[in-house]
Amino acid sequence: YIGSSGLSQLNMKSFAFDLSHAPECSLQNSFVCCRIYMDYNATTPVDPEVVRVITDALTDAWGNPSSNYLPGLKARDIIYHSRDTIARMVGGKAEDIIFTSGGTEANNLVFHTAVEHFRKSKTSAQGDTNSKQLNGRGSLPHIIISSVEHDPIKLTAKHLLKEDLCGLIGPDWVLVVDVTFVPISKVTARVEVEDVIAAICPTTCLVSIMLANNETGIIMPIKDICQRVREVNKQRAASAPRILLHTDAAQKIRDGNPVDGMFQFYGPRIGALFVNDPGTTTPVYPLFFGGGQERNFRPGYDMVYCMVGFCMDDELLNRIKTSMLLILKSILLLSLYFSELRTHTWKILNVFCGNLVMCSHFLRPSHILLSCGIPYHVATNALRISVGRCTSREDVDIVVEDLRDTVEQLERMN
Amino acid sequence: YIGSSGLSQLNMKSFAFDLSHAPECSLQNSFVCCRIYMDYNATTPVDPEVVRVITDALTDAWGNPSSNYLPGLKARDIIYHSRDTIARMVGGKAEDIIFTSGGTEANNLVFHTAVEHFRKSKTSAQGDTNSKQLNGRGSLPHIIISSVEHDPIKLTAKHLLKEDLCGLIGPDWVLVVDVTFVPISKVTARVEVEDVIAAICPTTCLVSIMLANNETGIIMPIKDICQRVREVNKQRAASAPRILLHTDAAQKIRDGNPVDGMFQFYGPRIGALFVNDPGTTTPVYPLFFGGGQERNFRPGYDMVYCMVGFCMDDELLNRIKTSMLLILKSILLLSLYFSELRTHTWKILNVFCGNLVMCSHFLRPSHILLSCGIPYHVATNALRISVGRCTSREDVDIVVEDLRDTVEQLERMN
Repeated sequence: YIGSSGLSQLNMKSFAFDLSHAPECSLQNSFVCCRIYMDYNATTPVDPEVVRVITDALTDAWGNPSSNYLPGLKARDIIYHSRDTIARMVGGKAEDIIFTSGGTEANNLVFHTAVEHFRKSKTSAQGDTNSKQLNGRGSLPHIIISSVEHDPIKLTAKHLLKEDLCGLIGPDWVLVVDVTFVPISKVTARVEVEDVIAAICPTTCLVSIMLANNETGIIMPIKDICQRVREVNKQRAASAPRILLHTDAAQKIRDGNPVDGMFQFYGPRIGALFVNDPGTTTPVYPLFFGGGQERNFRPGYDMVYCMVGFCMDDELLNRIKTSMLLILKSILLLSLYFSELRTHTWKILNVFCGNLVMCSHFLRPSHILLSCGIPYHVATNALRISVGRCTSREDVDIVVEDLRDTVEQLERMN
Repeated sequence: YIGSSGLSQLNMKSFAFDLSHAPECSLQNSFVCCRIYMDYNATTPVDPEVVRVITDALTDAWGNPSSNYLPGLKARDIIYHSRDTIARMVGGKAEDIIFTSGGTEANNLVFHTAVEHFRKSKTSAQGDTNSKQLNGRGSLPHIIISSVEHDPIKLTAKHLLKEDLCGLIGPDWVLVVDVTFVPISKVTARVEVEDVIAAICPTTCLVSIMLANNETGIIMPIKDICQRVREVNKQRAASAPRILLHTDAAQKIRDGNPVDGMFQFYGPRIGALFVNDPGTTTPVYPLFFGGGQERNFRPGYDMVYCMVGFCMDDELLNRIKTSMLLILKSILLLSLYFSELRTHTWKILNVFCGNLVMCSHFLRPSHILLSCGIPYHVATNALRISVGRCTSREDVDIVVEDLRDTVEQLERMN
């Protein structure tokens, strides 16, 4: 149990001891008088204007969007406007936006589409003499991702690889993929364009590299990768599948350059996949089947109450775009490491983070930081501090002061 | 364009003519002074108490549920309590509830699980002498559904069948299923237990029959089907897969008898799948991969703002349970059919339904009504009227009066 007296009045050593016996949720019982949110990179508070429009929608737009009476028409109107706003956000057409339940689903839809796309390409190329190169291990759909992707990308890839390793499917290629995890540069923490291009083989059907990393804020060279992959596609044999390009843009919305897969900032969570002419220029193979919503690319009841947060005018849109850039540019990664206190440091950080400052820390060293070449013991004690548009200069001063106190106390104990 | 004068003052014939040229959404421009909602079976308004808790959650519980600071802890608390409420609603354990984005996803998860379950059973039975019976067409996973299932069930089944018909996969059994659509009785509009049991074959891996029909309100004999299928499972050869049982309970929540797949009434839409000991007693194979939410059975960010509508006390829970039964028992199906006006009747109904009374009508005859043996022309002009807990006796009187006026006008024109 954590007392109500605040971090500075506690004896650090006994405190760490107490925490180790306390259930994780005991923080809930603590009296918190001063809390500063600095974890905008994990999630953002909901904008009061968004709360207002959602409340209105719950009262007025509760109808089935396919019905012809007012609460349904209002719901339909919300879907139309949200789609339009997102299209303007990414610089695409409204028809190119497919709403999903979130980024995880959007990313899984992309992987599923890539595998199906490969399967259909292979079927249509049957009888072609070039298709001989697609035998053995080389007949698996091949996917390229970076080694620092977000979980929904990394784990989907690993799951598909594991299916293969389990040997449950045998020599069948339908449900398995071959994946190349392109490492990032230890200097720039970015994937190198040349490394991505070098990984391409005749069975490559998808390149999926995140737009900006969620832990380091590093922006990947997506534009250059797109250009180079397009050149490869032009020179490809007719029997090889076209390489689809995808970027998980959960952390950043790119101006004027369409991307697919994003979260909503300063609103409730929902996903949207941007696809260039879905079903015609770019294939989309749905994950579910049902009532025809989202032109059958993603059926299921429309999440009107989440979408409504997107119904915004240009001024609010610009404000939010600027705020998103601010979040990315503002990530500060710190690591407090003292050899003697090794096992307890994270618990002390837990109090620093959980009680006074709300920011992200890691119980296990983040695979992303390790990929950047950061030593294990430093990565274990990393803190991620990120500011947003509600953060004031005073907030930053208080956090810096508090962090200095924590470090001093740790040093004294050392 | 529809004028503001209301149905009773309009000349029916010219009106029908006008409507045929008007875009579908022109109703939006009409001034509507008196509207009575009688389509509770399609969707329900959001309870004001639910609007309040959602607004509170948007303001206070916007944190990532896995974080340790207050807005995250509040989100975690909402997830915990919603799961508990639903478990009490269906008479199951909290651990048995898997939240999804809606009924469509929940139903698709069940089909995906059944096919994977069959695949793994077949793999583990390899070498068994009884597995010889699983050759040729008989090696496909077999699924039994009723002929009047809701779209997410019917279309998923049809999609899996179509994959087979396209011949794109060839003789591979991984992605294809064999489906039996059990017809309903023309007398009771129910599936007969004996018909379901008779359809079972050695490759049957799933029986999915809806709890209550969304158009007729007819409740299916799920309890008896469950009991009989359990007996079949007991007598099955070790090489045959256990038959999984599923019921789409979008229309009714069953007391004390666990079911899986339901929508939320009087709140925003969300899905929940009830599974008896998921991953141990009953297999669950996820559709997506990602950040570990819902114990990896359904990863993806938690829809806290939709779940919060489930955080209710026993009194509200009982009120809503009673209301759900009321909706089911209150479905009234009417058909206004006049041979001369055949092509225009639905447009007149559109006004009756869309302008004064909000209820469901069908542009094409419903396959469910046709399955019940209702003639094509009668099914085409069917109206579904359903009341809910906000419907007053006065509302019913007004609608009956208005319906009588409409019929009289139609008769005069005939």
